[in-house]
Amino acid sequence: MRIKSIIEYDGTNFCGWQVQPGLRTVQCELETAILKLTGERLRVTASGRTDAGVHALGQTVHFDINKDLGDSFMSGLNYYLPEDVRIMSLERVDESFHARFSSKKKTYIYVMYEGSESALLRNRAVNTGKLDVAVMNEAAKVYLGENDFVSFKSVGSDALTSIRTVYDSEVFVHDGLIIFSVTANGFLYKMVRKMVAALIEVGKGRSNMSAIKDMLYKKAEFTKVAPAHGLYLYKVEYDL
Amino acid sequence: MRIKSIIEYDGTNFCGWQVQPGLRTVQCELETAILKLTGERLRVTASGRTDAGVHALGQTVHFDINKDLGDSFMSGLNYYLPEDVRIMSLERVDESFHARFSSKKKTYIYVMYEGSESALLRNRAVNTGKLDVAVMNEAAKVYLGENDFVSFKSVGSDALTSIRTVYDSEVFVHDGLIIFSVTANGFLYKMVRKMVAALIEVGKGRSNMSAIKDMLYKKAEFTKVAPAHGLYLYKVEYDL
Repeated sequence: MRIKSIIEYDGTNFCGWQVQPGLRTVQCELETAILKLTGERLRVTASGRTDAGVHALGQTVHFDINKDLGDSFMSGLNYYLPEDVRIMSLERVDESFHARFSSKKKTYIYVMYEGSESALLRNRAVNTGKLDVAVMNEAAKVYLGENDFVSFKSVGSDALTSIRTVYDSEVFVHDGLIIFSVTANGFLYKMVRKMVAALIEVGKGRSNMSAIKDMLYKKAEFTKVAPAHGLYLYKVEYDL
Repeated sequence: MRIKSIIEYDGTNFCGWQVQPGLRTVQCELETAILKLTGERLRVTASGRTDAGVHALGQTVHFDINKDLGDSFMSGLNYYLPEDVRIMSLERVDESFHARFSSKKKTYIYVMYEGSESALLRNRAVNTGKLDVAVMNEAAKVYLGENDFVSFKSVGSDALTSIRTVYDSEVFVHDGLIIFSVTANGFLYKMVRKMVAALIEVGKGRSNMSAIKDMLYKKAEFTKVAPAHGLYLYKVEYDL
């Protein structure tokens, strides 16, 4: 039977999502926990990879399993998982469901803060110094709609096309933190971190809205990438 | 010259504030950073100790130093400090200032959450399960005013008296988290964690407001202690 699961993780001590020999990854921890609990050695498929240091509040995965563990499945997996990965939900779904290919929308958030460096926010948010949030929010609207994001992707992307549709893109202050929230039908490798890096340049007065527009039109590669530890895969939406 | 400094720390990987041979403590890290930066081996005095796992947003300390490093003092110390301790402010004060004895009020907050266990909140907040926040807030008012908190102290307290005045005591929801905030002229050893533990019992319907009143009047030791990692020394106030 096919299982859909939503998981949360603190990316700090992980070398990203994907299994890599000898490295601690979320996928590997998850597959190990399933093996320990059920005795089944299987592959878990995520909505997409996340890099080292990137967090997830709503990463979504699927896997196929023979044993039906019912209500104790979630608590059993959480028992075997390390504390920095938690299963938030687990449900049986139709075999046609695919964590990656069935996804319709993904939302990422990127967390920044001004002021002094914080011990408690380290690994969780990026200390940017003073930013002009209103100007950043205005510039963030440039990303809206269907655009070719080739200038915002990194080498290593295996996507067939670099055209993506952005449904929501905004910068706002929440509880003293500066948040960039972006929803699209999909993202290219390092795309959000490049989008943020461009907005930070705007917020610092070193760039502006039309420079971002130019990047999209001219398709010139933007080489700045904001640090991984401010980024959270917030949610993945399906038609289900 | 005497220096007053406000520091923030993530208590997770510390064996508390106070220097203990062979253990990683905040005081030891701070004194080591000062030694590395200035060559001066000295003692740092805090407003009070915090236990292993307890965090601080506004721990306040003082120390006496010969060298005047001016504007580069704070950045210099932060350079030598590990990332989980940060100097937030540093100022020269009168020799009569004492981080512990001059303090007039201290505020602690305790952070809880309901729902599933969170990977990102681990070590930062305590997963309590469902709580009745309104009833907890009502019960929190019992702590207000001058009371003998002998039933809320742990063995190991070196305080001369167990009478304390609580100026503010409330439980509220903030951004999906349940917060207990308490301000007093001082706290006994493990006092806040016992106050919270008693409130959690109330929030779960296993105790009530009058049972807490009884504890204060009867001075019977309350043995429950809430976990350290939900507790934050929020601020220390002085007459300065």
